[in-house]
Amino acid sequence: MLSLSIPEHVEPIRQKVLNFIEQEIYPVEAELLADKVSSRRGELMKGLMQKAKDQGLWALGHPEEIGGGGLPFMDYVFVNEVVGRSEIATVALGTHSLQDSIMLHRYANDKWRNKYLEPLVAGEVFPSFGMTEPAVASSDPTQLQTKAELEGDEWVINGRKWFTSGAGNAAYTTAMVRTEFDVPDHSAFSMIVVPTDTPGYNIIRDVKVMGQADGHYEVAYDNVRVPKENLLGPRGQGFKIAQDRLGPGRIFHCMRWLGQAQRAFDLMCDRANNRVAFGKNLGEHQQIQKFIFDTAAEIQASRLLTLHAAQKIDQGDEARIEIGLIKVFGAKMLHNSIDRAIQVHGALGVTEDTPLERMYRHARYARIYDGADEVHVMTTAKRILRVYNDGAKFDFGLR
Amino acid sequence: MLSLSIPEHVEPIRQKVLNFIEQEIYPVEAELLADKVSSRRGELMKGLMQKAKDQGLWALGHPEEIGGGGLPFMDYVFVNEVVGRSEIATVALGTHSLQDSIMLHRYANDKWRNKYLEPLVAGEVFPSFGMTEPAVASSDPTQLQTKAELEGDEWVINGRKWFTSGAGNAAYTTAMVRTEFDVPDHSAFSMIVVPTDTPGYNIIRDVKVMGQADGHYEVAYDNVRVPKENLLGPRGQGFKIAQDRLGPGRIFHCMRWLGQAQRAFDLMCDRANNRVAFGKNLGEHQQIQKFIFDTAAEIQASRLLTLHAAQKIDQGDEARIEIGLIKVFGAKMLHNSIDRAIQVHGALGVTEDTPLERMYRHARYARIYDGADEVHVMTTAKRILRVYNDGAKFDFGLR
Amino acid sequence: MLSLSIPEHVEPIRQKVLNFIEQEIYPVEAELLADKVSSRRGELMKGLMQKAKDQGLWALGHPEEIGGGGLPFMDYVFVNEVVGRSEIATVALGTHSLQDSIMLHRYANDKWRNKYLEPLVAGEVFPSFGMTEPAVASSDPTQLQTKAELEGDEWVINGRKWFTSGAGNAAYTTAMVRTEFDVPDHSAFSMIVVPTDTPGYNIIRDVKVMGQADGHYEVAYDNVRVPKENLLGPRGQGFKIAQDRLGPGRIFHCMRWLGQAQRAFDLMCDRANNRVAFGKNLGEHQQIQKFIFDTAAEIQASRLLTLHAAQKIDQGDEARIEIGLIKVFGAKMLHNSIDRAIQVHGALGVTEDTPLERMYRHARYARIYDGADEVHVMTTAKRILRVYNDGAKFDFGLR
Amino acid sequence: MLSLSIPEHVEPIRQKVLNFIEQEIYPVEAELLADKVSSRRGELMKGLMQKAKDQGLWALGHPEEIGGGGLPFMDYVFVNEVVGRSEIATVALGTHSLQDSIMLHRYANDKWRNKYLEPLVAGEVFPSFGMTEPAVASSDPTQLQTKAELEGDEWVINGRKWFTSGAGNAAYTTAMVRTEFDVPDHSAFSMIVVPTDTPGYNIIRDVKVMGQADGHYEVAYDNVRVPKENLLGPRGQGFKIAQDRLGPGRIFHCMRWLGQAQRAFDLMCDRANNRVAFGKNLGEHQQIQKFIFDTAAEIQASRLLTLHAAQKIDQGDEARIEIGLIKVFGAKMLHNSIDRAIQVHGALGVTEDTPLERMYRHARYARIYDGADEVHVMTTAKRILRVYNDGAKFDFGLR
Repeated sequence: MLSLSIPEHVEPIRQKVLNFIEQEIYPVEAELLADKVSSRRGELMKGLMQKAKDQGLWALGHPEEIGGGGLPFMDYVFVNEVVGRSEIATVALGTHSLQDSIMLHRYANDKWRNKYLEPLVAGEVFPSFGMTEPAVASSDPTQLQTKAELEGDEWVINGRKWFTSGAGNAAYTTAMVRTEFDVPDHSAFSMIVVPTDTPGYNIIRDVKVMGQADGHYEVAYDNVRVPKENLLGPRGQGFKIAQDRLGPGRIFHCMRWLGQAQRAFDLMCDRANNRVAFGKNLGEHQQIQKFIFDTAAEIQASRLLTLHAAQKIDQGDEARIEIGLIKVFGAKMLHNSIDRAIQVHGALGVTEDTPLERMYRHARYARIYDGADEVHVMTTAKRILRVYNDGAKFDFGLR
Repeated sequence: MLSLSIPEHVEPIRQKVLNFIEQEIYPVEAELLADKVSSRRGELMKGLMQKAKDQGLWALGHPEEIGGGGLPFMDYVFVNEVVGRSEIATVALGTHSLQDSIMLHRYANDKWRNKYLEPLVAGEVFPSFGMTEPAVASSDPTQLQTKAELEGDEWVINGRKWFTSGAGNAAYTTAMVRTEFDVPDHSAFSMIVVPTDTPGYNIIRDVKVMGQADGHYEVAYDNVRVPKENLLGPRGQGFKIAQDRLGPGRIFHCMRWLGQAQRAFDLMCDRANNRVAFGKNLGEHQQIQKFIFDTAAEIQASRLLTLHAAQKIDQGDEARIEIGLIKVFGAKMLHNSIDRAIQVHGALGVTEDTPLERMYRHARYARIYDGADEVHVMTTAKRILRVYNDGAKFDFGLR
Repeated sequence: MLSLSIPEHVEPIRQKVLNFIEQEIYPVEAELLADKVSSRRGELMKGLMQKAKDQGLWALGHPEEIGGGGLPFMDYVFVNEVVGRSEIATVALGTHSLQDSIMLHRYANDKWRNKYLEPLVAGEVFPSFGMTEPAVASSDPTQLQTKAELEGDEWVINGRKWFTSGAGNAAYTTAMVRTEFDVPDHSAFSMIVVPTDTPGYNIIRDVKVMGQADGHYEVAYDNVRVPKENLLGPRGQGFKIAQDRLGPGRIFHCMRWLGQAQRAFDLMCDRANNRVAFGKNLGEHQQIQKFIFDTAAEIQASRLLTLHAAQKIDQGDEARIEIGLIKVFGAKMLHNSIDRAIQVHGALGVTEDTPLERMYRHARYARIYDGADEVHVMTTAKRILRVYNDGAKFDFGLR
Repeated sequence: MLSLSIPEHVEPIRQKVLNFIEQEIYPVEAELLADKVSSRRGELMKGLMQKAKDQGLWALGHPEEIGGGGLPFMDYVFVNEVVGRSEIATVALGTHSLQDSIMLHRYANDKWRNKYLEPLVAGEVFPSFGMTEPAVASSDPTQLQTKAELEGDEWVINGRKWFTSGAGNAAYTTAMVRTEFDVPDHSAFSMIVVPTDTPGYNIIRDVKVMGQADGHYEVAYDNVRVPKENLLGPRGQGFKIAQDRLGPGRIFHCMRWLGQAQRAFDLMCDRANNRVAFGKNLGEHQQIQKFIFDTAAEIQASRLLTLHAAQKIDQGDEARIEIGLIKVFGAKMLHNSIDRAIQVHGALGVTEDTPLERMYRHARYARIYDGADEVHVMTTAKRILRVYNDGAKFDFGLR
């Protein structure tokens, strides 16, 4: 049975996380997000991480067996919306490593598991993930060009990737590379762990994205050699492992988008209640009321759609159609919510004096990363049509 | 706790209703909806009603105490989506009289309750409801002009109403009229039962709406005299009673809109799978895939929003904000779903050969009746802003 | 050089046409458009036609050599916007036969030209055009199934068409049929004149469209035999002739859509200035202001785009890209303008008491006839991309 | 008579400007726009300015009498679209000072005219304009708080402004301040010239906007004293002078937006023709075709609307309605064009490797500066409704 309300036992921890974000993170957020690397920055972040650990808020969704808080999936989904309020929170609360930790835990050999897993979960070392390449449209990942060839006991990797987020201070990158050459594309790619200090792993630049160097690195793989056993899982299973990672990952993304949107909504409503133009509060003008109305409807619709998809996943369903829907619907909701909040703030809304402009810029990638909207539209519609082709109807599974 | 899945015990009855609609109603629907009154029409409808009674599908949502099926509110909500597939179904299954029966049951004096209630629930007589007036914008109902003045033991009613749906074959009309003249507008209106054979109750015409005479009558009240006790409930409580009627009524509307939209979606997908243009099925063209994707997302979003609002009402909350959201969001979803289904059908889509064109025309009123969109936007946004003004945040009540 | 203002010498005739429509047509429009064939209807229409002739307003755009008013193309374009105000006007002013007259004049043999051309231009007989078929998606006309095979000196035609507008009282139908079977699809179709009294030309029904029987006939061709010389132009040139017809025809459509939209806009603004809700005129509410603003922008944008396309055609350019753009942009503008006008009228807007609801229903086909939107999007974008592929840029030809 | 084609005599100069931008500016644009002040930056810009002067492309639209190129208004409008391709071009070609030069020329006393005008037009000193204030919603400028009080022969100015663009390297700021205190708001403001080295003129910061410090300064006026004769024009005429400045200024803005949009469109089409996904060029996918189609229609519609407004202004009309329409319509077109171009570029589109991401960020302010969209919607709709209220119809002036 699907339940879309916040479970009672989740409320206290969700509230505690929200308090932490509002009281500990908001006051230092602007400083932590500023362009230039302040000397205080690393220190500040470490302080936040320690406080989160002290308050029992660290890595809440990681399995207990690898040192996490062990929140069940659905509980964590509800918490994750709140985490999304600030982009600082994912690192400050240790949730950033969830997917990489699980991938390592599940697929890595003992050596790497022993070496990286504990410090990864503890936030002492950072992971990174390398998939997107500048030379091909990543929306069709069968086109990826980076390849690894087995020479003796080593993989020799050549190619170029970008959007390897966090490569600059990561311990290793999990690289998605072609390892098979005579098989169908979907069985041709594998995941390989590449420590960032491996010779030939050359960071080209921190690509500026929407005006900011945020750690989306371009990395050249020039005859990078790593041991054969750095393979994650079996050869040719790269897409499968990526899918394992992406499914729940998209749920988490979508919940965090809701956190962003709700924050924008709160700011918009407060502004509408407190700023005057033409003799009355902005909120008494119907055009502003329309913004508030539409945003409320889109946020709540998106939230319910996301929770529904989450529950299907929690019940063991892959929920491909539902995830396709929320990826696109949610990214649009995210943009619209922030966009309208900016408009209600007028000139202030585009300045550094509110978090909105940065949220707006970030929201733009949401329609591209994890699969461009257009790809989700195509594949999701095809899945739906297949249901009808089989003589059934698609009832969106309210069961 | 909110649960948005179809309860297991509701599935069988919901399926039975769906089967009835697909097998009994669809084959005769076009004939029943055609313009001209065929001689077979009344007979056909009576046959359907009897079949529904025989199969235990009659008046499922009416309270047992007044002769109905007694389905609890939330169960009935799920059934109601299916009822919405065909506009014929509401009458054929006896759900059309639900709100009027309850109003009569709750507020009428014994005389009228005894006279009308039983045949009303049984579908032997028909109710009608008179609120909208041609002379004023009904979106602001404080402007309504029809008035009733007490002369001795009788109300004398004068005015003109239209969109008194079904007046042509109704036993009576519940008229919303001004009875108080020295009080604030919101306490100035009352509901009065007016048998349609009362002298002075003059049907002017069956106003054609979107090209069809569908029973939206214009009625002149020329010194209509009815006994004092025809008042429903206390004097001046008209708006309160209307609100009691409208709240759950809007949930039912929205669920039936979902039924319409789902039917359009099913037709669209089947067409996309079976019609060829430019060498492949329509469904293989991305513009059509976009239609399917967007429609799926909007239907499912609307369904979840409506179920959420329903559950809040079921828990005793008035859910004014939630109802405002679904009224507007749902009406748009309804239009969009049918509109896209028509487009995928091409020229066929605007002809009488599918139910889509009629559904399309009907969908246009959805943005007007029960309060124009613009009014819901205004009042709902104000309610939301009030929450913030009180220092709280609006979290859409996922509890 | 492109000029987008109404030429001074066109103003008087344009104004005269507008006056005729407002003073002669509006008062009888509702009666002429009503469902049932009133006995007065034919008479009324004949009266209007005679008046138009008497006032020198008849067939203004037809070439002088075939008995028309001889207005140059661009002058007629400006007049045509005004003609569009009422769908009655095209017939009452004799503009309805323009494209068929020209086609006959240009391509028919002497026999048919002598027989039909004069009474056609004079409005004494009516043409019809048969292209769309129920069995295939007409958006891809290479799929059309109706075929004509030469047996001796006669074409033998078999197939089924619908949307043969006006077939019910037409003298003849120009049928688009496959005559060639071993050539590429685009050279396989021809136009053949079929008198409606030819044996085997069987009218099946007047297909109801958007709730109304408006003369979109379904016609079966059952071994219809017509003389060889009924061919219009050379064999296999059907698409070319259709294109000749469609290019300027789409300009005329788009201008008439502007007439419809402007009428809706005028009605909307008058209503906004004269109806009160919540203590002030509708026009003082920002949501209504937004409707007015958006409609003004869309109408004017559409008008300028259409005039630009018209001038390119006038200069001998086929203007395929420009025509593709206005077909889709204009149809959307048309819908939006009428839709918003309805909303501002509230319940009144969906009734027969204003022309809006009928305009709304008609507007729905605009996205389908003369090529579904989706086809124009596809072909127009391809044309634009071809320009870039050739190393040029597309500057929309402001020359 | 309105003519919307590029006049023949304008083509060569327009083409020359375009060549300059493509050949001289594009190659150094990224460097000039980069965040950090490179040592080469000032030098590079000076080099471009000199080259533009050498090629006769400097200050083309400034009146000849003040040392400009003397292009007539409409000619300059067409050139200005091309200037808009790169934000560097306005300064490199000397067009940036047009409005301030004219204001100075028209309203300043001899002292300032002699001191600033020549070097201003020559690009040797820079102007700035101070209107927006952080403390009030500038969309309603009657709320501005900065005031100047006459003490003896000096104005004493106090207040705080931001978005004083370019204040950091400007010679002076024209400040809009309240000088009258007992008159209606619209006659209460004046323009005063404030040299930036005046004591009390304190630059607080270069406010970061959409992630970048682009010269939108916050400036405190702490008892700033300037001579009485620094007043521009008569006392209380601030709004009138601002309006003189804004009307044509908005035309220039809108034309430059078209330049931006056309550049995005060119990039999008080239990408669509050259990037492969799922086995074919992006441009062969219908979702991408839809982007191209919609963008083409919106750009061309916006261009024609803007040219129409420009011509009305050129004919002496204030064209308030037309300017209101293009401000909002154009800003949306600008966003949509860039947004779709980004989407077609995928991940590349949000990086620094194309100009698109910066254009996207800039486009966001277009809906706020020079009056928020919502204000234009309100005032423009009111103007339209006034026409109808006077018994006329609004025909958008195609004369």
